[in-house]
Amino acid sequence: MNAHAILLISCQDQLGIAAKVTCFLAQYEGNIVDIDQHVEDNKYFMRVKWSLAKFGLAREDIKKRFEQEVASHLTKVDYQLYLTDKTPRMAIFVSKSSHCLFDILARRESYQVEIPLIISNHQTLAPIAKSFDIPFYYLAIDKKNKLEMEKEQLALLKKHDIDFVVLARYMQILSASLIEEYPKKIINIHHSFLPAFPGAKPYHQAFKRGVKIIGATSHYVTSQLDEGPIIEQDVARVSHSDSVKDLIRKGKDLEKIVLSRAIYNHLNCKIITHKNKTFVF
Amino acid sequence: MNAHAILLISCQDQLGIAAKVTCFLAQYEGNIVDIDQHVEDNKYFMRVKWSLAKFGLAREDIKKRFEQEVASHLTKVDYQLYLTDKTPRMAIFVSKSSHCLFDILARRESYQVEIPLIISNHQTLAPIAKSFDIPFYYLAIDKKNKLEMEKEQLALLKKHDIDFVVLARYMQILSASLIEEYPKKIINIHHSFLPAFPGAKPYHQAFKRGVKIIGATSHYVTSQLDEGPIIEQDVARVSHSDSVKDLIRKGKDLEKIVLSRAIYNHLNCKIITHKNKTFVF
Amino acid sequence: MNAHAILLISCQDQLGIAAKVTCFLAQYEGNIVDIDQHVEDNKYFMRVKWSLAKFGLAREDIKKRFEQEVASHLTKVDYQLYLTDKTPRMAIFVSKSSHCLFDILARRESYQVEIPLIISNHQTLAPIAKSFDIPFYYLAIDKKNKLEMEKEQLALLKKHDIDFVVLARYMQILSASLIEEYPKKIINIHHSFLPAFPGAKPYHQAFKRGVKIIGATSHYVTSQLDEGPIIEQDVARVSHSDSVKDLIRKGKDLEKIVLSRAIYNHLNCKIITHKNKTFVF
Amino acid sequence: MNAHAILLISCQDQLGIAAKVTCFLAQYEGNIVDIDQHVEDNKYFMRVKWSLAKFGLAREDIKKRFEQEVASHLTKVDYQLYLTDKTPRMAIFVSKSSHCLFDILARRESYQVEIPLIISNHQTLAPIAKSFDIPFYYLAIDKKNKLEMEKEQLALLKKHDIDFVVLARYMQILSASLIEEYPKKIINIHHSFLPAFPGAKPYHQAFKRGVKIIGATSHYVTSQLDEGPIIEQDVARVSHSDSVKDLIRKGKDLEKIVLSRAIYNHLNCKIITHKNKTFVF
Repeated sequence: MNAHAILLISCQDQLGIAAKVTCFLAQYEGNIVDIDQHVEDNKYFMRVKWSLAKFGLAREDIKKRFEQEVASHLTKVDYQLYLTDKTPRMAIFVSKSSHCLFDILARRESYQVEIPLIISNHQTLAPIAKSFDIPFYYLAIDKKNKLEMEKEQLALLKKHDIDFVVLARYMQILSASLIEEYPKKIINIHHSFLPAFPGAKPYHQAFKRGVKIIGATSHYVTSQLDEGPIIEQDVARVSHSDSVKDLIRKGKDLEKIVLSRAIYNHLNCKIITHKNKTFVF
Repeated sequence: MNAHAILLISCQDQLGIAAKVTCFLAQYEGNIVDIDQHVEDNKYFMRVKWSLAKFGLAREDIKKRFEQEVASHLTKVDYQLYLTDKTPRMAIFVSKSSHCLFDILARRESYQVEIPLIISNHQTLAPIAKSFDIPFYYLAIDKKNKLEMEKEQLALLKKHDIDFVVLARYMQILSASLIEEYPKKIINIHHSFLPAFPGAKPYHQAFKRGVKIIGATSHYVTSQLDEGPIIEQDVARVSHSDSVKDLIRKGKDLEKIVLSRAIYNHLNCKIITHKNKTFVF
Repeated sequence: MNAHAILLISCQDQLGIAAKVTCFLAQYEGNIVDIDQHVEDNKYFMRVKWSLAKFGLAREDIKKRFEQEVASHLTKVDYQLYLTDKTPRMAIFVSKSSHCLFDILARRESYQVEIPLIISNHQTLAPIAKSFDIPFYYLAIDKKNKLEMEKEQLALLKKHDIDFVVLARYMQILSASLIEEYPKKIINIHHSFLPAFPGAKPYHQAFKRGVKIIGATSHYVTSQLDEGPIIEQDVARVSHSDSVKDLIRKGKDLEKIVLSRAIYNHLNCKIITHKNKTFVF
Repeated sequence: MNAHAILLISCQDQLGIAAKVTCFLAQYEGNIVDIDQHVEDNKYFMRVKWSLAKFGLAREDIKKRFEQEVASHLTKVDYQLYLTDKTPRMAIFVSKSSHCLFDILARRESYQVEIPLIISNHQTLAPIAKSFDIPFYYLAIDKKNKLEMEKEQLALLKKHDIDFVVLARYMQILSASLIEEYPKKIINIHHSFLPAFPGAKPYHQAFKRGVKIIGATSHYVTSQLDEGPIIEQDVARVSHSDSVKDLIRKGKDLEKIVLSRAIYNHLNCKIITHKNKTFVF
């Protein structure tokens, strides 16, 4: 696999940003393979991916040179640099449902990601973790010990040098203090077409309302429940002949596919967030 | 075209309902072309459609005989009989947007429906009505004259013997008094995937929330705004690069198609309502 | 779980079939939970499912009585009886791709099915079979030993009393002699939207043709390659920016979901085949 | 409306193309609103759209300067320049079906396009043309006079300075000689999910094959029937209970929506063709 670098840039909209960035890359013989831009609220957002094969800067010099030659000439700039040969480290949180966990683990090889640990508030899925040779941490959470348990969770994440967290049908609400440690780094799957049916038991809500289509939504977790920036959604047609049990069965397939696409986009550094939205390039 | 009869039946769930209905039809040589049933909340719902070609009862006797031989033996029964050679009469309400009106009128011939009039609170679409030779009534509604104007609307509907009303992006909220005259007989199209984004400016709401899919919802009008039984929904994928204007453009295609499917199902007597849901057979 | 019986009936179209069947069930207090019919080519097809809870016939008498009281009065009749408390036995054939196998096994509990064995022409997926505690038979097939190997496959299927076979991306073409042993009992997943792109490397074909949507098709295997009755299809949107590798990645999700729906419909006795089509009730 | 310019560029893949183009635009204060690129077969394709509001070159000088300052430094380059304030001129060809024609005309205002004429081999749709005040030319084509009639068609297109042609369910095959006059400028809608069911009566073919999904395909016309570069496709779910008539009814909605999207993309200069594919930016 050829190594690439990716820059996610945001700054105040102004003339010539694309020219500055592309000239910088051309100067060091960086062959651009993807370039995307978006303007919203008078801000400019850009994702550019280029080959490192013949690139004239050493990996460790890219950031410094980009700062000097490009970023320092832009207003209100913010940027991240990613290298595709640095494998990110993902933690998975689960409860009792296995479908999302299975789906993630089944595509582990195609994802190019490290999964150093699975954390759960139930022991139900420990055998699956074992069959995939991934350490499984059981931390029983109740109303009283929640903050304490979250401290243990956080310690595990730090110890394993985790880059981002996937809540694969984890049925606990994270405290703001934990979320703040991983801003735009915690991906959740909600089993409805948000903003319809937030909160508990969305399939029961959908059945009661008599909708003709159900959905699933993957989003970054913020301290507002089910209100974070949406990464991906998908839907499936249902009818009156579908019971709540049928909605759950059909919905599970949506949940796992939608979550997997969100993980794919996150892993490939395709997402920039702005306000409460994502731009998926 | 071969004439058919359709019965929509609901009653308390009990043994042998389908047998009673199908034996009644078999006895008079009614060849069943469609049969569907659904059970919910301990209630039984059935739609059965049969050919009148060799049917042994005269049209005017069907209801009486069905009452005597079937319905009177069922508990808490309710039913409607429709004959496909009796063309229903539909009124269309519009405001300024033309896309749904055009779409309905363009498929007028395929629908088998009479459209005796179009009612509007603006004069904008009068030329379209004229080009299709349909009488157009302009009733300017403001805050003060609303109830008075609705009386005129109602008088027109009664005068033209209207069976059901289609709100083709009619931008006025109907009063409960008008709705009660046509229970489950007024079809609206809402430009969002309900229950997400009810009320005003759903595309602006969708843009702000950053959803990845937009939708449209056709439903029967009740006195609760955007809360009536949903008949049909559909969705379209969007991305961050779609402006509000793009959402409106893409949404218009959804609106007209979803509304036309709801009209088709209503015209073909495929819909039974129960509580706040539809069963579309 | 309440036990149910299902009858799949086909016969020459004639008056009163539904009446005969429903009266038969009503007479023995069989509460009908699903009833569907379809007429095509002057033939009548019916699926009826009823509760055995209060049904007045013993399981072993249903067939005889149905034959005497209903079937013998119908022309050119054919029917199958299924009991939902008899768990069907499914064999899975695989090669090297794991995504469909994982997906099937991950939903094993929700399926209500026995999986006595997995057969493969490669050893690649043996560890997955082992982690799910399912016997794995490796039968290396080459051009010379094909018929011999198929005899071994058939012996295994017979020995394990297999009801139906799922080809979960099994990359060998079955001989007609094997197919004939399991008519309409072998389910395949083809990685294209048939009849587009039959045969080898459909994603490469799709990329070359520049289609904007890819698909997957699940069908019963017949001796005509990729020509058997289609059970289920689904599609995903792609664009010019998707490489063949991207098509394969997106297609894998389609394949596993489409295959799982076909298995679900087969397991729930929802499918009647006629000529080269399926009616999925 | 702010005026913009669009460049569609293709050339041999080489380092620094994006830099050359964006620097050229930045130099004259052209604010880029869209930028997209794609690499395939060692060729580079780019679409860039910029505002003319403060652009430092006069409209008539852009091409010359771009040639001198950018294109002449690229290998095997090809490019087109479009100005959004120059309204394109579209001819529509129809036969007897009205649904696509209605749909196009109903959105005429939103399209920003001139429609100087409609050409047909039947008189059926003349009244629709009249109601929209568009000249309608009836040219009765039979086997003997085809080339002669096509000469008249061509003369009309030339006389009215037509930029591109839309075949809105025009049921005649164009001769290669006519197609060559408008390469990649004639848009057709085929009523199937190509490459499935090319040629005549695709809905009948789809019914016979028993597919679970039908589709429509819009493509540029080439001398190979139904083989031209695909611009847009979409699909709808069907079931065994849909007759051929139902497929046609559902398909008509697909056809008109898919065709309208293709026209939209063509009008907005979003399409580059390469070999037999389109890149829709």
